[in-house]
Amino acid sequence: MSFTFEILYKSTKSRARVGRIHTPHGVIDTPGFVPVGTNGCMKGLTAHQVADLGVQLMFCNTYHLMVQPGADVVAAAGGLHTFMQRTQPLITDSGGFQVFSLAYGGYTEELKSKGVKQQRNSVAKITEEGVMFRSYRDGSPLLLTPESSIAAQKKLGADIIVSFDELPPYHTDIRQLRKSLDRTHRWEKRSLEAHQADPKNQALYAVVHGGVQKDMRSLSAQYLGSMPFDGYGIGGSVGKDRAEMEEMLRHTVHQLPEDKPVHLLGIGDIPSIELAVPLGIDTFDSSHPTKCARHGLLFTSQGTLRIVRTAYAMTPGPIEVGCPCYTCTNYSVAYVHHLFKAHELTYYTLASIHNISFMMRLMATYRSAILHGLV
Amino acid sequence: MSFTFEILYKSTKSRARVGRIHTPHGVIDTPGFVPVGTNGCMKGLTAHQVADLGVQLMFCNTYHLMVQPGADVVAAAGGLHTFMQRTQPLITDSGGFQVFSLAYGGYTEELKSKGVKQQRNSVAKITEEGVMFRSYRDGSPLLLTPESSIAAQKKLGADIIVSFDELPPYHTDIRQLRKSLDRTHRWEKRSLEAHQADPKNQALYAVVHGGVQKDMRSLSAQYLGSMPFDGYGIGGSVGKDRAEMEEMLRHTVHQLPEDKPVHLLGIGDIPSIELAVPLGIDTFDSSHPTKCARHGLLFTSQGTLRIVRTAYAMTPGPIEVGCPCYTCTNYSVAYVHHLFKAHELTYYTLASIHNISFMMRLMATYRSAILHGLV
Repeated sequence: MSFTFEILYKSTKSRARVGRIHTPHGVIDTPGFVPVGTNGCMKGLTAHQVADLGVQLMFCNTYHLMVQPGADVVAAAGGLHTFMQRTQPLITDSGGFQVFSLAYGGYTEELKSKGVKQQRNSVAKITEEGVMFRSYRDGSPLLLTPESSIAAQKKLGADIIVSFDELPPYHTDIRQLRKSLDRTHRWEKRSLEAHQADPKNQALYAVVHGGVQKDMRSLSAQYLGSMPFDGYGIGGSVGKDRAEMEEMLRHTVHQLPEDKPVHLLGIGDIPSIELAVPLGIDTFDSSHPTKCARHGLLFTSQGTLRIVRTAYAMTPGPIEVGCPCYTCTNYSVAYVHHLFKAHELTYYTLASIHNISFMMRLMATYRSAILHGLV
Repeated sequence: MSFTFEILYKSTKSRARVGRIHTPHGVIDTPGFVPVGTNGCMKGLTAHQVADLGVQLMFCNTYHLMVQPGADVVAAAGGLHTFMQRTQPLITDSGGFQVFSLAYGGYTEELKSKGVKQQRNSVAKITEEGVMFRSYRDGSPLLLTPESSIAAQKKLGADIIVSFDELPPYHTDIRQLRKSLDRTHRWEKRSLEAHQADPKNQALYAVVHGGVQKDMRSLSAQYLGSMPFDGYGIGGSVGKDRAEMEEMLRHTVHQLPEDKPVHLLGIGDIPSIELAVPLGIDTFDSSHPTKCARHGLLFTSQGTLRIVRTAYAMTPGPIEVGCPCYTCTNYSVAYVHHLFKAHELTYYTLASIHNISFMMRLMATYRSAILHGLV
């Protein structure tokens, strides 16, 4: 089966919709959460544990995989699905975000820096051609261009791949942002052409940019929306707070083709999902739930449980009553607390299983709530 | 079912035997390997992964469990089996080894120190009563005596528990060793009495000491062998090399009751098992296979594979052809190599699964070889 997006139901009270993305490796129900397994592996989990969690789409990072083990190694192994033993859909990004965020130190750091650029030496040079950067492993120079990013993503062979874009710093003036946007559009057009020359039954998403400038977001949505991309990611900074994000997403999604899936790149905390589902976002990728798990923050419908708390040392029940995950059906809070305190590796496995399971159930609840007219 | 040891077959060419230890939580085939899960968890594995590996007996450390989460917490959870979700047999040690080896820095360090004691401040005081030491977590003082060790092991509730002994330093004079041996015997007798006062369907093993002094090993084997222990562990230093170990084990095992299981404490590397099975050792506990796994050393019947080697970056097959473990039936050497290089947590899981599986198959091979008259 090649890529199609089927909209099953549209909310009458918001832009939320329930859909199904069909891919060569199976179906993705939307709205859906997309856990991140940067290196072709969800931290602490086996492929079968991920599959058992009902993870329908998993996000891997092209940049990391290019550096280690290298796209050619993955291709020689028969592609990323075979290499990592995943039978269900995969999405890879272009590598652009990592290259630039390693240079700028990431949005959070960058916001804190208030415009004082921490230009690290990982990015050697940005030209019209692409970005020359240094491997974080051995310092060797690597050139990432729209064509080389798409070529790497063809070697990896994910069901969904992403156009190569430039990530502008948050603190940038409008002239610079516009220059960056125009270049991103040229790079995305080149990405599309490279993809179309050899589609390999993959779907290509564009990435809409424009920062927090409504006119530029409009321009980007309309420009990219007029081209035959299979879906649209929303990238770059969507604002310094949730109010700005809401305004920016509402403005942007509205101008994208309604029959294509919309993905919010790198944002997947629970309040952002709550805000973005009614705005028409179909999929969310984020390492937030697994990072939280590793730091001792466990999700429940009653709020976040901080497993380090001494109060949990003797709690006999599961993390969340009724949670069907492996962790909750087998282990007590007391045992999970003990493993955390004892720095046991198995803690990371059990905690990640629980948080991913929570996210899967949360998204199922959203789909059901939309169908019942609640969202 | 309470504890019994059934000898199925005795070799005619060595002291090796094939047996079955029956415990309240099931059968342990001997000769058998006993993986270590210090904190009530095998590092990186879930209880179900351990069970799937066919681990019949698992070793947990009383000292660590007393410090975190505390024996009372485990007791409140319904005992160690329930707490860690293990349905098969468990063995706990007395805590003595850890208290002393933390003080002396362990045998390997101690051998290297050539007698220059690294008396750390974790052991405050050794008296006839027991050992006063400080928690490695918070420095709080804890008193470990034969009675308190047995009481803690009663709270943990393992199928097999171990007498409280003193671990003499390797570099000690004969007078000191003899003093230590006599005290160990008094402590083990007190352990037996504490156990008999409340057996709780647990089996109690003695620990034979005497260092590398044959007369003291004889004395210890005969003294402890005359008392109604359910099995015998061989503890303390059995020598500075394999030749000395072989001589010492041959000498000691020979003087123990033939109808009781014999356990070699803390030794489970492959050459030592090869040496000790024909001498009549029935069970071996060691963290060696899981430690090796975490350090990138994977066991195969062709020798140890160093997964870090660049040569493995594109190896398509499993770690060992024909290995039935989860790792080998699902993943290539190339992927395991990649996870190791990428410092992925899942590497530890997959590598530990393989090495434990190897040990389980190795011991099954020994049992079969004994039955076929080869050992």
